[in-house]
Amino acid sequence: MFRIAIIGAGNVAWHLASNLEKEGHQITEVYSRNLANAKALARTLWNAKPTNSLDFSHSQASIFLVCVSDNALQEVIEQIALPEEVIIAHTSGTHSLEILERANAYIGVFYPLQTFTKDKEVNFKNVPICLEANEAEVLEVLIELAESISSQVYEISTPQRQVLHLSAVFACNFTNFLFTISKEILERNEMPFDLLQNLIQETVQKAFVLSPENAQTGPAKRGDTSIVEKHLTLLESYPVEWKVLYELFTQQIRAYYQNIT
Amino acid sequence: MFRIAIIGAGNVAWHLASNLEKEGHQITEVYSRNLANAKALARTLWNAKPTNSLDFSHSQASIFLVCVSDNALQEVIEQIALPEEVIIAHTSGTHSLEILERANAYIGVFYPLQTFTKDKEVNFKNVPICLEANEAEVLEVLIELAESISSQVYEISTPQRQVLHLSAVFACNFTNFLFTISKEILERNEMPFDLLQNLIQETVQKAFVLSPENAQTGPAKRGDTSIVEKHLTLLESYPVEWKVLYELFTQQIRAYYQNIT
Repeated sequence: MFRIAIIGAGNVAWHLASNLEKEGHQITEVYSRNLANAKALARTLWNAKPTNSLDFSHSQASIFLVCVSDNALQEVIEQIALPEEVIIAHTSGTHSLEILERANAYIGVFYPLQTFTKDKEVNFKNVPICLEANEAEVLEVLIELAESISSQVYEISTPQRQVLHLSAVFACNFTNFLFTISKEILERNEMPFDLLQNLIQETVQKAFVLSPENAQTGPAKRGDTSIVEKHLTLLESYPVEWKVLYELFTQQIRAYYQNIT
Repeated sequence: MFRIAIIGAGNVAWHLASNLEKEGHQITEVYSRNLANAKALARTLWNAKPTNSLDFSHSQASIFLVCVSDNALQEVIEQIALPEEVIIAHTSGTHSLEILERANAYIGVFYPLQTFTKDKEVNFKNVPICLEANEAEVLEVLIELAESISSQVYEISTPQRQVLHLSAVFACNFTNFLFTISKEILERNEMPFDLLQNLIQETVQKAFVLSPENAQTGPAKRGDTSIVEKHLTLLESYPVEWKVLYELFTQQIRAYYQNIT
């Protein structure tokens, strides 16, 4: 069991705090610049003190998890006052480990790779937690903490974490925008987006069972130019950028599979 | 209960035949140009006769489901001989209803919207079946048949079906290629693609719970130009086309949300 202070009261703070408490850790304080937000989160916890002061010099916590937005991180670290011999870790996907150095403590990164939404519970056991530390002892403590709430714990360096974020942009942000396009095409033709739910779920499942490069299907992969031409004609009544995207993907998929075979 | 002949012995034929039989229908014949393939499928069924002849004039079936590849469909229809007063339906996502007219029978489309893989069972109850017919009585029979194996039955016209295919290319084929890119970025940096599985699944879930245009996140949506610049720099060591894709998506997402707000 660790005593943990949670710095921040946003989505990551809510999900982390409740999951840590559920696994037997004690949340000592919840900080937010806005005391009302700290109180709202603290009320859901057993015995956490809400605060809007960054003076933690008398805190009983041994681990300080900083769950604030990327923009606010630097300011929080400059102002925080910590007891001696504690660990401070941030939860950011983009900031380096070194940004914590001025906090005068042992430092680490505790980055849960997930998209958190208010009121939507997440099964933390399957959320990868990406850890980093510059001392072996600190890493060991963070591993113990992470393994208590998740079965997927990885050691990931700062450059890796930044590349991981880039790959997630391709796999999730761009993918979601393709869903937006797809939905609009369907709805303009009086069909519901739900029609595709099962097919999309099977596509994702196949990508992880077979690996995406083996799971690829469709006219571009098959080199079915008559279907591709038909689709480009259909796309003439939509924003021209969608046609550009269609052509770009088709060329790249075709090139990828021509090089392989 | 219907008596059904299955024309074809590929993935769609295998999955349809077994699910129809499971729901109490009788498969009378299984046709394949290659008799061995017809036999292989017929062996998994109760009492279906394998055949490589398209002369069905003495068949006991009242419904003929043509599950052959798009390229082979025309040839099969030209050669098939049917009893009187039967229904023939194809299972293609791209061919029109009218292509069946020369078969001298009642005609329809019975299109299961799913990607089928050998040896991977599919829960047919959740597979949308898209129906079309040019006579109300034929449509009624196809609805009864479809509802016996699936809880998602839709009447979809030929032009709608073609647009549906286009939207599935965006939502599944292009999405899968983004996974391939994402996986390669991760593996070049010694991280496994599995890291993203939970995040991708949550992305898909959110798209259907919140709708994709509301579920969009990421640096492009937030207008976070410093992260976008960092990503473009990182992408310099990858194929130039990935940078083109990144820029195109970023511009389009930004434009989409600037227009909304």
